[in-house]
Amino acid sequence: MQHSDSSRLKHKIHEIIFEADTPEGKAFDVILLLLIAASVLTVTLESVEHLQQRYATVFTIVEWIFTVFFTLEYLLRLYCVLRPMKYATSFFGIVDLLAILPSYLALFLPTAQYFLIIRAFRLIRIFRIFKMAHFINEGDIIIQALRASRAKITVFLTFVSLLVIIIGAIMYLIEGGTNDGFSSIPRSIYWSIVTLTTVGYGDITPLTGLGQFISAIVMILGYAIIAVPTGIVSAEFVREYRNNKATTQACRYCGKEGHDHDAIHCKYCGEVLNL
Amino acid sequence: MQHSDSSRLKHKIHEIIFEADTPEGKAFDVILLLLIAASVLTVTLESVEHLQQRYATVFTIVEWIFTVFFTLEYLLRLYCVLRPMKYATSFFGIVDLLAILPSYLALFLPTAQYFLIIRAFRLIRIFRIFKMAHFINEGDIIIQALRASRAKITVFLTFVSLLVIIIGAIMYLIEGGTNDGFSSIPRSIYWSIVTLTTVGYGDITPLTGLGQFISAIVMILGYAIIAVPTGIVSAEFVREYRNNKATTQACRYCGKEGHDHDAIHCKYCGEVLNL
Amino acid sequence: MQHSDSSRLKHKIHEIIFEADTPEGKAFDVILLLLIAASVLTVTLESVEHLQQRYATVFTIVEWIFTVFFTLEYLLRLYCVLRPMKYATSFFGIVDLLAILPSYLALFLPTAQYFLIIRAFRLIRIFRIFKMAHFINEGDIIIQALRASRAKITVFLTFVSLLVIIIGAIMYLIEGGTNDGFSSIPRSIYWSIVTLTTVGYGDITPLTGLGQFISAIVMILGYAIIAVPTGIVSAEFVREYRNNKATTQACRYCGKEGHDHDAIHCKYCGEVLNL
Amino acid sequence: MQHSDSSRLKHKIHEIIFEADTPEGKAFDVILLLLIAASVLTVTLESVEHLQQRYATVFTIVEWIFTVFFTLEYLLRLYCVLRPMKYATSFFGIVDLLAILPSYLALFLPTAQYFLIIRAFRLIRIFRIFKMAHFINEGDIIIQALRASRAKITVFLTFVSLLVIIIGAIMYLIEGGTNDGFSSIPRSIYWSIVTLTTVGYGDITPLTGLGQFISAIVMILGYAIIAVPTGIVSAEFVREYRNNKATTQACRYCGKEGHDHDAIHCKYCGEVLNL
Repeated sequence: MQHSDSSRLKHKIHEIIFEADTPEGKAFDVILLLLIAASVLTVTLESVEHLQQRYATVFTIVEWIFTVFFTLEYLLRLYCVLRPMKYATSFFGIVDLLAILPSYLALFLPTAQYFLIIRAFRLIRIFRIFKMAHFINEGDIIIQALRASRAKITVFLTFVSLLVIIIGAIMYLIEGGTNDGFSSIPRSIYWSIVTLTTVGYGDITPLTGLGQFISAIVMILGYAIIAVPTGIVSAEFVREYRNNKATTQACRYCGKEGHDHDAIHCKYCGEVLNL
Repeated sequence: MQHSDSSRLKHKIHEIIFEADTPEGKAFDVILLLLIAASVLTVTLESVEHLQQRYATVFTIVEWIFTVFFTLEYLLRLYCVLRPMKYATSFFGIVDLLAILPSYLALFLPTAQYFLIIRAFRLIRIFRIFKMAHFINEGDIIIQALRASRAKITVFLTFVSLLVIIIGAIMYLIEGGTNDGFSSIPRSIYWSIVTLTTVGYGDITPLTGLGQFISAIVMILGYAIIAVPTGIVSAEFVREYRNNKATTQACRYCGKEGHDHDAIHCKYCGEVLNL
Repeated sequence: MQHSDSSRLKHKIHEIIFEADTPEGKAFDVILLLLIAASVLTVTLESVEHLQQRYATVFTIVEWIFTVFFTLEYLLRLYCVLRPMKYATSFFGIVDLLAILPSYLALFLPTAQYFLIIRAFRLIRIFRIFKMAHFINEGDIIIQALRASRAKITVFLTFVSLLVIIIGAIMYLIEGGTNDGFSSIPRSIYWSIVTLTTVGYGDITPLTGLGQFISAIVMILGYAIIAVPTGIVSAEFVREYRNNKATTQACRYCGKEGHDHDAIHCKYCGEVLNL
Repeated sequence: MQHSDSSRLKHKIHEIIFEADTPEGKAFDVILLLLIAASVLTVTLESVEHLQQRYATVFTIVEWIFTVFFTLEYLLRLYCVLRPMKYATSFFGIVDLLAILPSYLALFLPTAQYFLIIRAFRLIRIFRIFKMAHFINEGDIIIQALRASRAKITVFLTFVSLLVIIIGAIMYLIEGGTNDGFSSIPRSIYWSIVTLTTVGYGDITPLTGLGQFISAIVMILGYAIIAVPTGIVSAEFVREYRNNKATTQACRYCGKEGHDHDAIHCKYCGEVLNL
């Protein structure tokens, strides 16, 4: 029965670490997320020079506590999962490994420790917790809406990319000679992206009258074409909602869903709907 | 009958101060709002140095007139309300108290007076006046649309938060050494928020070619993903409007819904609707 | 018959100057708009110092040609219109007068001539030309959509106004002492508007860590709440379109329009719709 | 049969160069696009001074390889197309010619080579490749939505143009004297476009209190009226989607339309749809 005990233990650990259905599993996930957030905060604060100078030892100790905990957690995951290789090569498996490696690498390579910020990726697990609530459905709707408009967004981004290259080249020809900001075409393209997206740093600005005139057109263009992705995604959400609205009643005969509110007959089998 | 008189007086004051249904109540609310606006303006102008130097005495006198008036108003509210403790601990009760306290505190603590700007919160009462008009309904629709999209907005904001942390960390690794603007990860995260939201102050800008390339991607990302919250809220408003338009009345004969507000006959069976 | 001749002449001039239905009227309007545009361009270029120094005489002559023409046009409008006082006190009448006055005033007051830019307002007449095409209908839809969402936009703008005052005051308390940009509450409010609307000049930027943290929140807020007016107006346009869509078929019995596409019976009189 | 052979060869070349239906045609288009992208990248990098200084010879050689290839391609297109003049004067024909001319002109005019960036326009051919996939349909929907809202967008842009001229003139009158940034009306108009579109470079910023107050209004205006084009295009996409979804097929028995694409039976009478 030893095997069975071990198997049961594995199963129990798996339930706690990988699932979030049981109270223990949920508690583990919440604690894990808080620890990840705390470790991300530590790396973040460590990069602030005057804090690093004062609390160097504290940071090192805290860092190693997190590393030891995350290493144990990684080993436990490998132990309890049915197919360890599949987990180790999955997205989360690689992220989990990358989140602890820099600490050990930093023993030999001092600059490696900043790669610990990779731990921020582990925060994506937060969406796993959302699974418990109704958030997963909402997240799905967003992803579905974006996936449905993928092709349109691709066409739009291709168009925008061509536009910024051409605008960048034109501005290079106009401002290139007199304005240090437009010293090369790549810089001019960078400027045209900064302008078209209405970010507008102001680190590079047109100085000639003609350059300012073309800039003005680019700005109005950028101000207007933001309507395109927005319109695409809005329409997709409206469609998503309308379909969602229709899914409430299922046909008694063929069991299919998706009927409009004013439908009298099932649109799949022709039988009268549940009146 | 003295008790009854006092009670009637209390009721009358309550009606004037707390309600906005009677002409007196409405007038009181309008005057109160104007006084609050004037007092907010006073605190605002008081912070402008050259005005403060010239009109110090005027500001002090005006300030105390407002304080005395608001103190009287607060005491009257406490007097006429049925359950004073409930009012005193409510949101508006606390705001009303905080709006007068700094004046008295400033007698001992000179810098305390700037907290008088808390009075700006009292302007939220303006939405109470809106109650009189059709504004309340409109405000309700906005709040309902935002509440309905709360879960989606939360998912979106979580995603954006992770994104800016990761982008900030990447930019710190790239620009950190050579660019004073990216001297720490928190500053880099601040930059990535400034860029992703298309605010683009320009106080921190990338200087290396790679940094500018990644910035360009962040900008286009920020330019594109604004479509997500916009799409969510738009779709919610469209749904809100459609529901408002249609769901209220059902035909007595065929039971069908979805009739317009101006419909007299059922559009499916032709029978007269519930008149 | 002299009276009749004069009346016919008046009528003819009125038709040419005020209407755009006849070929002459249309031609007059197009020429007038080109002249207005040219005069606006003249005033604009006149303000550029190095052009003013070189072409001072040319500008003066061109300016007076426009002024004489617009004066004649104004007098003709007064002559041919049925009720001169009504025109003179209408919006366009006042704009037309203000568009010529500065030239005469400039004889006594040199700086008055820049007010000639008021002529730009005359360009609003361009929408009169649009009347000829289908633009008027499109413009109407925009105005209707904005008018329908007026109340919601008012609530939204009130909320935004309160928000920027409170954010401005908070930032003044945080950054005020150490940062020259936040030297007074009005300046801090100006900064919070610059930030919330994602304009982001960068003339005033937070320097403290806490200030940058709050700025980041303001930016994300501004990035997110743009969804509210956009959603309101989008939903209004969707509604506008849907209503427009429904207006094609009219009931044969009662003549009323506005039926949905799936309607079998007229929703006003109950008769069967034109099948 | 020689003629027929030549004709067949022409036809074969035409199929490869102009069409993307056959494997060879598709391969040719993909290779051509990669070459165009590579040549655009070369021109782009050539403009970076320190790269130009080190790799001048490499750039020249690579440039001429591209030019020779594109020249051959252009001649082949002229040879195999049925009506050479029609191609030569078409949009793509002119772009193809302009994409090779600067190289030859640069033999006499050194600065001419930067016009090679015109090659970027050739990248528009990428949308031809999209034809193979479902992208063409998606691109069509975008273009249709924009075309349908053309009139509304025109009205909106006319309004925005008038607005920025008037705001520019007002700011010139206010800030003109004291602020170098507002030294002329054209510059002030440039500023008002930078502000209204929420780009906000910060190269020109208001300094007076009144100027900042008006700027704040312009920003909030720009923040709010972005809702108009967004709303127009969103509504157009919603309409586009609804039409796409529904209007294609009518029931043979009851004649009703509005069926979903996956419907087998009419949802009103239950009869089988046109299979």
